[in-house]
Amino acid sequence: MTKISKSDIKDMLAKAEHLVLTVHVSPDGDAIGSMAALYEYLIGQGKSVTMVVDDEVPSKFHFLSVTAYIKDVSQEASILDGLEQPDLVVVLDASTRERIGKVAAWCQTPILNIDHHISNSQFADYLYLDAEAAATGEILADLFMTWQAKVTPAMANALYLAMGTDSGFFKYSNTTAHTLQMGAYCLEKGAQPDLVSEQAEEITVKALEGMKEALQTVTFHKDGHVACMSIPYALMEKVQGQTDGFIEWIRHVDTVDIAILLKEKEPGQTRVSLRSKGADVNRVAAVFGGGGHIRAAGCSISLPLEEAKKKLLEAI
Amino acid sequence: MTKISKSDIKDMLAKAEHLVLTVHVSPDGDAIGSMAALYEYLIGQGKSVTMVVDDEVPSKFHFLSVTAYIKDVSQEASILDGLEQPDLVVVLDASTRERIGKVAAWCQTPILNIDHHISNSQFADYLYLDAEAAATGEILADLFMTWQAKVTPAMANALYLAMGTDSGFFKYSNTTAHTLQMGAYCLEKGAQPDLVSEQAEEITVKALEGMKEALQTVTFHKDGHVACMSIPYALMEKVQGQTDGFIEWIRHVDTVDIAILLKEKEPGQTRVSLRSKGADVNRVAAVFGGGGHIRAAGCSISLPLEEAKKKLLEAI
Repeated sequence: MTKISKSDIKDMLAKAEHLVLTVHVSPDGDAIGSMAALYEYLIGQGKSVTMVVDDEVPSKFHFLSVTAYIKDVSQEASILDGLEQPDLVVVLDASTRERIGKVAAWCQTPILNIDHHISNSQFADYLYLDAEAAATGEILADLFMTWQAKVTPAMANALYLAMGTDSGFFKYSNTTAHTLQMGAYCLEKGAQPDLVSEQAEEITVKALEGMKEALQTVTFHKDGHVACMSIPYALMEKVQGQTDGFIEWIRHVDTVDIAILLKEKEPGQTRVSLRSKGADVNRVAAVFGGGGHIRAAGCSISLPLEEAKKKLLEAI
Repeated sequence: MTKISKSDIKDMLAKAEHLVLTVHVSPDGDAIGSMAALYEYLIGQGKSVTMVVDDEVPSKFHFLSVTAYIKDVSQEASILDGLEQPDLVVVLDASTRERIGKVAAWCQTPILNIDHHISNSQFADYLYLDAEAAATGEILADLFMTWQAKVTPAMANALYLAMGTDSGFFKYSNTTAHTLQMGAYCLEKGAQPDLVSEQAEEITVKALEGMKEALQTVTFHKDGHVACMSIPYALMEKVQGQTDGFIEWIRHVDTVDIAILLKEKEPGQTRVSLRSKGADVNRVAAVFGGGGHIRAAGCSISLPLEEAKKKLLEAI
């Protein structure tokens, strides 16, 4: 593994004629936004570029028109069989080789990895890691600015999506002055914050129905300091796993310090997400073999939801 | 009315020894954050400063410690009787004299108005209006930067609150590159985005209970393009009018173009908020004597909630 500089990246991309871009499975706004922006940059440089992801691209990101060119190899693995090894594979926003799914086994080409996860396993041949960045999109915006690259409004929207989604629209503690400066750069280049945020926050009718049922399950404990929301297996099936943002509603309650979302992923298997405003939830998760950070952690408990909830409340 | 420059403001504040600061009734994050930041700046300049508001300061803004010094004259009108006329009254984020409530009748002193509302009535003796700014807090950040003023972390948090709340945390169309640059400036001065956003988005258990009931009322119309949420009078009483963010849940649904929130403020009196992703809801509101913008409008209908809803759907 070689750590490289900003200008090394520019040279490396300039030298390659054929490139493949990929991102982690379960792609989020940072993964898709970063890939869309880099794709358009490279096309503008006259390159032949293919985007592959071992997963579906969520429909809320389809407003970025170049996402139409992303090949979903989870549906059609034969796409990879027919894909020639390029000069360079660029892996964005993925911290391990496993995170790119079956693209890993296909890849026989040198990998350039651009990432912001401190946990990066240094799996790539060439690595540009900025763990201070709130998003991979922040790194790309900085690269484009440094290179004085042509950034179109579509690229600017893609980068604003990337930064906005990974920083909770500049609300999380990972937001720095530099994150906001790169946001300003995107707006100078024509990004539309209202369009981007509306798309990023889109939910389905199913998710709304799920929210309605999930709110019925909310319980408060320990003088209102702890709030639990439960998604039993039947409801998990109904919302097709779309529970993004559910925990926010109980976390925002003024009395609540610890917010807990319990999801019965399989009957008798409960996945727990913990969020806190002060208490160390990493310690709570650790009791059940899980982990995370002080204010955000998770664990899996091999018990039906109600029993898992009881054990968890005892542990707190 | 005299329009003044950035350096005029500095001189005017420097000359005044005793100042009163006030903001509009129903103070929001921009009003309170702007006042808190200016208060601390002036105290730092050795001034004698009194903050008065003709309303209660919402508890979610109490994390800004100087809010403890704000005098709520809606509770104790006698405070104004005992308050001497200062050298200068600074009115922040209010676009008309009426918007400062009973402070208007008390005030016999020249008024300096710093505001960002394009609808500003030019009521003040001295006006600094920047209608391009997303928030009054953005104007103040710009002034402090221009003046190279000492900005403490507490002032930076106050300004980040002001800008964050008025721009939907950099998601609304009023967000510009300058807004984000001023956000970056706040972070350089020590603002904590996670702390500020957590406080700004705090809700009460009552509001959560209200959300739960309000979600039960959601109906979809016109092939899912229109969604309605209803808050009948009994529920309005129960949530004590706290319905912030309720409309977002239906607006975010992928099929929805027009989101409608109907609130029965008094029995037989329905207040309607309309939000759209494309359709001109200003035209819909106008049918009922209301108005607003293409994508956000409102009206009042003198009918019980269900009848108002029927009329509204007919109009669409």
